[in-house]
Amino acid sequence: MGRWEPNARGRLEQAALDLYSEHGFEQTTAAQIAERAGLTERTFFRHYADKREVLFGGAHALEQAFVETLADTPAAAAPIDAMASTLETVAAFFLERHEFAQQRQAVIMANAELRERELIKLASLSTALADTLRRRGVKDPAASLTAEAGIAVFKVGFERWVADSGQRTLADYLRESLDELKAVTSGE
Amino acid sequence: MGRWEPNARGRLEQAALDLYSEHGFEQTTAAQIAERAGLTERTFFRHYADKREVLFGGAHALEQAFVETLADTPAAAAPIDAMASTLETVAAFFLERHEFAQQRQAVIMANAELRERELIKLASLSTALADTLRRRGVKDPAASLTAEAGIAVFKVGFERWVADSGQRTLADYLRESLDELKAVTSGE
Repeated sequence: MGRWEPNARGRLEQAALDLYSEHGFEQTTAAQIAERAGLTERTFFRHYADKREVLFGGAHALEQAFVETLADTPAAAAPIDAMASTLETVAAFFLERHEFAQQRQAVIMANAELRERELIKLASLSTALADTLRRRGVKDPAASLTAEAGIAVFKVGFERWVADSGQRTLADYLRESLDELKAVTSGE
Repeated sequence: MGRWEPNARGRLEQAALDLYSEHGFEQTTAAQIAERAGLTERTFFRHYADKREVLFGGAHALEQAFVETLADTPAAAAPIDAMASTLETVAAFFLERHEFAQQRQAVIMANAELRERELIKLASLSTALADTLRRRGVKDPAASLTAEAGIAVFKVGFERWVADSGQRTLADYLRESLDELKAVTSGE
């Protein structure tokens, strides 16, 4: 059995991103990623099912953070306010991750299969948020629409944050996007 | 060269939906669809690249209808009002299509690959709507967020319309969803 590899996941993730950026996602193999990270291919497959999943290894944790934070907001909060405070909390996970997020986004945007996987991630997140709102007693279609609104704000705010220089935090962009969504839906 | 086949696309589409509903999408072949429609396999491939595209043959026309309608709304209209009137117009394409839409939705929901294709269709539509709004002079993030809001309303309203008995029109559901989105974002 393998010895303990300090931060193997993080090393594999960074090595994969670097190789995808340098040579393209299609041209990179799991063996090359493991080699760049100074680990064995076997270690790679202990952590990730395939080279695509290296880019989506955080998706489950992100969804869990969203759902748990939303579930824990005070019951009296209006759904959109519960969503706003959830976005604020989740944004903290991306502190110090701007460069990483930029690199990841560039790799994903360059590949149709990865863009699809990213869409699926967001759709799954939307479904999970709507379910959480229903468990808080929010009726449909309000639950589905609040979840979709939250995802729209996250998607647009995230893209703008990634495209920017990283001076402002993701939380700033999410707040701004939510304010803008409120403004556009009220016809301003 | 083949003789003219009256309404070959429509016949293939209905035959495909019936077979997907009866036996599942995976278990159905293009040859079986053609046979059920009383057409040759060669005719099938003249109209559709593969059996998946039979379910998405209307996607391009739908996107075109969305974009052209949005582009034609009066320039003075607030973006969200332009989107509301676009949704209203596009909904008319689905009159007399409730049963078809129900059958199609059931097939799509039963298959992960088809659900992904549907997500891609909506994401492409959102991008096209945001581009159209930008050409109308709407700035970002308002353009992206109005487009995302329109797609959220379309998605949620469409799902509710399909799940219902068909007494009310899609336009009714889209109007209701947009009103509800306005209500939730204003914190009601």
